[in-house]
Amino acid sequence: MTARFDASTLRAYGRGLFAAGGLPSDQAEIVGRYLVEADLMGHDTHGLAQAPGYLKDLRAGRMAADSDVAVVADRPVAAVWDGGYRSGVWLAWKAVDEAARRAERNGLAAIAIRRAHHIACLAAFLPVATERGLAVLLVSSDPSVRAVAPHGGVEAQFTPNPIAFGYPTDGDPVLIDVSSAATTMALAGRARAEGGRLPGPWLVDPAGRATDDPDTLFADPPGAFLPLGGLDRGHKGFGLALIAEALTSGLAGFGRADGPDQWGASVFVQCFDPEAFGGRAAFERETGWLARACRAAKTAPDADPVRLPGDGALARKRRADAEGVALHPSILPALAPIAAELGVPQPEPRT
Amino acid sequence: MTARFDASTLRAYGRGLFAAGGLPSDQAEIVGRYLVEADLMGHDTHGLAQAPGYLKDLRAGRMAADSDVAVVADRPVAAVWDGGYRSGVWLAWKAVDEAARRAERNGLAAIAIRRAHHIACLAAFLPVATERGLAVLLVSSDPSVRAVAPHGGVEAQFTPNPIAFGYPTDGDPVLIDVSSAATTMALAGRARAEGGRLPGPWLVDPAGRATDDPDTLFADPPGAFLPLGGLDRGHKGFGLALIAEALTSGLAGFGRADGPDQWGASVFVQCFDPEAFGGRAAFERETGWLARACRAAKTAPDADPVRLPGDGALARKRRADAEGVALHPSILPALAPIAAELGVPQPEPRT
Repeated sequence: MTARFDASTLRAYGRGLFAAGGLPSDQAEIVGRYLVEADLMGHDTHGLAQAPGYLKDLRAGRMAADSDVAVVADRPVAAVWDGGYRSGVWLAWKAVDEAARRAERNGLAAIAIRRAHHIACLAAFLPVATERGLAVLLVSSDPSVRAVAPHGGVEAQFTPNPIAFGYPTDGDPVLIDVSSAATTMALAGRARAEGGRLPGPWLVDPAGRATDDPDTLFADPPGAFLPLGGLDRGHKGFGLALIAEALTSGLAGFGRADGPDQWGASVFVQCFDPEAFGGRAAFERETGWLARACRAAKTAPDADPVRLPGDGALARKRRADAEGVALHPSILPALAPIAAELGVPQPEPRT
Repeated sequence: MTARFDASTLRAYGRGLFAAGGLPSDQAEIVGRYLVEADLMGHDTHGLAQAPGYLKDLRAGRMAADSDVAVVADRPVAAVWDGGYRSGVWLAWKAVDEAARRAERNGLAAIAIRRAHHIACLAAFLPVATERGLAVLLVSSDPSVRAVAPHGGVEAQFTPNPIAFGYPTDGDPVLIDVSSAATTMALAGRARAEGGRLPGPWLVDPAGRATDDPDTLFADPPGAFLPLGGLDRGHKGFGLALIAEALTSGLAGFGRADGPDQWGASVFVQCFDPEAFGGRAAFERETGWLARACRAAKTAPDADPVRLPGDGALARKRRADAEGVALHPSILPALAPIAAELGVPQPEPRT
């Protein structure tokens, strides 16, 4: 039988690990909370699975451990922070929280962050805004990595650049998180580790052929990820990736032109307060109406009903809250030696 | 030999038609200018080809002819206008121009518009902001039309919802305009009129099969457009379409929940001033660097070099400015009888 853990047990475990690893206690609390949030939502490659890497980076000084974020620019609705490679999870949470507060005062507000450490699961931060009745846009790119080819090319120039957007309805919020590439680095890595193929021809080889073979990414010369839309409609994913690059590294004023050699995220966060536009009630009436229309849309015979983005994650989270979380089996064994070194006991499953 | 027209001749013709059709002269000027702009950029289904329909709607009162736009909400960085089915081209231009002015003061600013008439070519409005050094987001949906199925469904529930984004670089601006559906209504309509097929399986039939046959849209029961990403990756296009619906009808506070039976657009415009973030110089350095890296990316042997979104349109516009515009052959004949009725002479080609 799979061990299940109370979410609160895992949050305490995460907080304990990061506090022992050297983060200030408020940062440790946030990092533990939002990594576990990703596991609760079922995004288990971007939850506690990230903790060993973070703890190693903390120890090696590749994640800064203080809270002295430099403010590069600051107006009521437009700010830039230099994260200095501090915890990206903490910075992303802090930026959504701050942008939400500013949006409530002004109608909308944006914060761009340069040089954050890894921000993990974008979808996990969206409810910070949607629970306050706000819509939120969260975008990230990594200027030290090239993985995706521009449409028409075969050479990687940018990252899969996820675009996440959350908004409230008169029922559940809608939580969108789409990569602008045809697939994600996590999925390609897993397929390669298992010696398998991707579910579709989402990569391009140096001859310009679409392929499902993850080995092309490691050949010499290497292939690249295709943008969303693939060989024929990839101009669309390319366009989305460029929007993400402009909002993140462009507005943050730091990115590929600076040739960073340390892994790190450029981040853009914006919150919108519907109350300052046509009103929160009207907003939720429209978004709720469309959500219901989509869920009720006809499907092919015997197909499952239409789900909205976030429906699956929210259902998994509710189940995890009620029944405990079944962590991916690789996660706790990977953390065990680090936890022992830090003197943090492994979490006890619920009985 | 194809007749070519000076852009200024066509703008004067457009202005003349709309002024004679009843629009105030400043509106007629803008509508003529931006329809011709679409033709210059090569988006010839959304240029003067739209004029006969607009003039008919003006005559029938389905496009309002005065300039009394109602302000529903107004804060320095967040406003909502009720377009009352006034010219969408004029409203979209006016909103980009006003959002640009407000972004220059505040860092960013957004305007949502309910009940605009058709806004034509989104890409044509982007330079209004990029020429001022600003980035701009322009999104539209039509709450009276259902054409695209949600991912996992076979029944249309929303429109192809284009997302346009423009930004300056240290060279040419990047002008992105992507539909969140796998293809556009214009392309499907043209394929059907010619008795042909689409270039890809971008529609879904009621049995849930992807198809390139545009007749499925008119069958009983009808099929629908697939979201960007098609049958397997369509959750991404579905997500983008929902973002567009939330920004347009959601923030404007009027949309599908109100069951409008008149064709009309919900519009969202936002401008960003890089100067208020990490600085305009840093922004253009980053965006210019990436544009050059993408243009220089390796391609498959014998493939064309990579082009950035907007490169083709800007090249066509430069050629049109130098050599005149070769209008699509259907455009002037369609306008001739209306122009004659309105007493507006047909434009003379350059000699």
